[in-house]
Amino acid sequence: MGFAGTTCLVTGGYGFVGSNLVHRLLAEGAHVRVVDALIAGHGGTRLNLAEASGVDVLEARIGAPEVADLVAGADLIFNVAGQVSHTASMRDPLTDLELNAIDHARFLETVRRVNPDARLVHTSTRQVYGRADRLPADELTAARPVDVNGVAKWAGERLHMVYSDAYGMAATALRLTNTYGPRQRLTSDELGVLPVFIRKALRDEPIEIFGDGSQRRDCMHVDDVVEALLAATAPAGVGRTYNVGHSVDHSLAEIAGIVVAAAGSSSEVRTVTWPSEHARLDIGSFATDSTRIAVELGWKASIDLTDGMRSTLAFYREHPEYLA
Amino acid sequence: MGFAGTTCLVTGGYGFVGSNLVHRLLAEGAHVRVVDALIAGHGGTRLNLAEASGVDVLEARIGAPEVADLVAGADLIFNVAGQVSHTASMRDPLTDLELNAIDHARFLETVRRVNPDARLVHTSTRQVYGRADRLPADELTAARPVDVNGVAKWAGERLHMVYSDAYGMAATALRLTNTYGPRQRLTSDELGVLPVFIRKALRDEPIEIFGDGSQRRDCMHVDDVVEALLAATAPAGVGRTYNVGHSVDHSLAEIAGIVVAAAGSSSEVRTVTWPSEHARLDIGSFATDSTRIAVELGWKASIDLTDGMRSTLAFYREHPEYLA
Repeated sequence: MGFAGTTCLVTGGYGFVGSNLVHRLLAEGAHVRVVDALIAGHGGTRLNLAEASGVDVLEARIGAPEVADLVAGADLIFNVAGQVSHTASMRDPLTDLELNAIDHARFLETVRRVNPDARLVHTSTRQVYGRADRLPADELTAARPVDVNGVAKWAGERLHMVYSDAYGMAATALRLTNTYGPRQRLTSDELGVLPVFIRKALRDEPIEIFGDGSQRRDCMHVDDVVEALLAATAPAGVGRTYNVGHSVDHSLAEIAGIVVAAAGSSSEVRTVTWPSEHARLDIGSFATDSTRIAVELGWKASIDLTDGMRSTLAFYREHPEYLA
Repeated sequence: MGFAGTTCLVTGGYGFVGSNLVHRLLAEGAHVRVVDALIAGHGGTRLNLAEASGVDVLEARIGAPEVADLVAGADLIFNVAGQVSHTASMRDPLTDLELNAIDHARFLETVRRVNPDARLVHTSTRQVYGRADRLPADELTAARPVDVNGVAKWAGERLHMVYSDAYGMAATALRLTNTYGPRQRLTSDELGVLPVFIRKALRDEPIEIFGDGSQRRDCMHVDDVVEALLAATAPAGVGRTYNVGHSVDHSLAEIAGIVVAAAGSSSEVRTVTWPSEHARLDIGSFATDSTRIAVELGWKASIDLTDGMRSTLAFYREHPEYLA
């Protein structure tokens, strides 16, 4: 695929995944537009695009009417904006539903009105599966989310598929697994375990794992996610939903050990009893089956966790502002 | 189960399913409270409770703060309120999401705050399955709705399950199939095919079926649905989701024929080409597997379509105000 000369809109472009995509699209020679609301507590920060030049940025919610100006004329729309915190979604369910579902309905109405022929890719999450009845979970596994975030993300994702089918728009949905890499917000405890592990390893602080540490997860470097986002724009992906995970999984204890080793950190890894407010949201082990995207779009995660963590930690050592 | 002396809240109690439940609960000796917003174009009408006495009614949205007064002290809460029109959900997606998902989040927050120990039953729809990848669809079949209504109803349903699991609340979700019976709004073309068939048969008007009439559906009399709602309050149903369908299905052409015969009508049944705005929402044939509720709660649809239609048509002949 050639992205040079195309006009791309990235929603959530100040965020972790969004900003890495922006940098990649710029490197490919694309014209890049960004809309991001910079909502407090989320992953977005202007820091993430400080070194990106020529990007047209609108600081607004994706549901805002003025977003139409950025949607108009875009060849490709990467709709990455969203709230990712499970705990925040339980504390404030209405805001999560507003950001992950309602704003996406508004955004889809805008796209349908001003640019229905744009190629559209939405980032969803493996969180929609919740406690899946079978593992590894493929795309035909019933979604049974355990928190409001999983419900709202699924609704936002399905709206993209409804608009794709009902109006002949060209949308693709990607269900991303736990992701790490440069430009992730490290200073929150609510944006996933990986940035917490990284922050603690960099600070030589103890890493606490809830439960016995045996819960398994697959972890993906953001560069692999960016590759998946680009691959998803292929014609074969229209109207399709894909798991985007890593074929190798690890226990949380192993993952923490890999992070500590990659950091050369003196952090101790401890297991602690589940705090009551988290225990009911625990899904145990999880594994994704990403065969569909491999077969249909030729994408496969290629970055090994140890290698990916080494380069990630090097990035944060060079950019201590992410720990400030 | 004994419902005599219990206090029951029925949301959407002026509506089709809700009002039939209210009448049944009154007959069982329950104290009944109703909240209903009487939203224009929906199925709710004061007519449906005109013969019900002693019901405490609040005319409000379920998300309204004053609903807390009816939630407090209720032993059983039947959360039946919702918008059911597929076409309306596409015309105005934000309103459908607001009514079927956001208002339910608000309602659940109210229940959690003022009466978290209440037994809670939510009515969802087989529409969440959309174009299922396997038929008959059981509860582990992935939901792939084809319209905004299916997305929003699924979100409202899953919120009940999240609250049940995360907060130890006692909720059950029922995915209802196409339902017919007394107290259904017949004068709208947007509330399902069955009330349209009934209206046209009663008026001896031609019945038009989109496509070739071979699409199969199971149809359930509302008395069977009410039985399922009562059965769902059993302890075994806590935290569970159930398909509530009929084990016998028919083609739409057969269903129209059964309605016409039951009505002794001179209506002609015609097949017509799919109108373009409906064609993309077509799911083809559908069938539900309702084994789970039979095994776990002992419920099974018992009313044959011909018998159910005969008594339904007799009701409407005695109550011509439903055709006005």
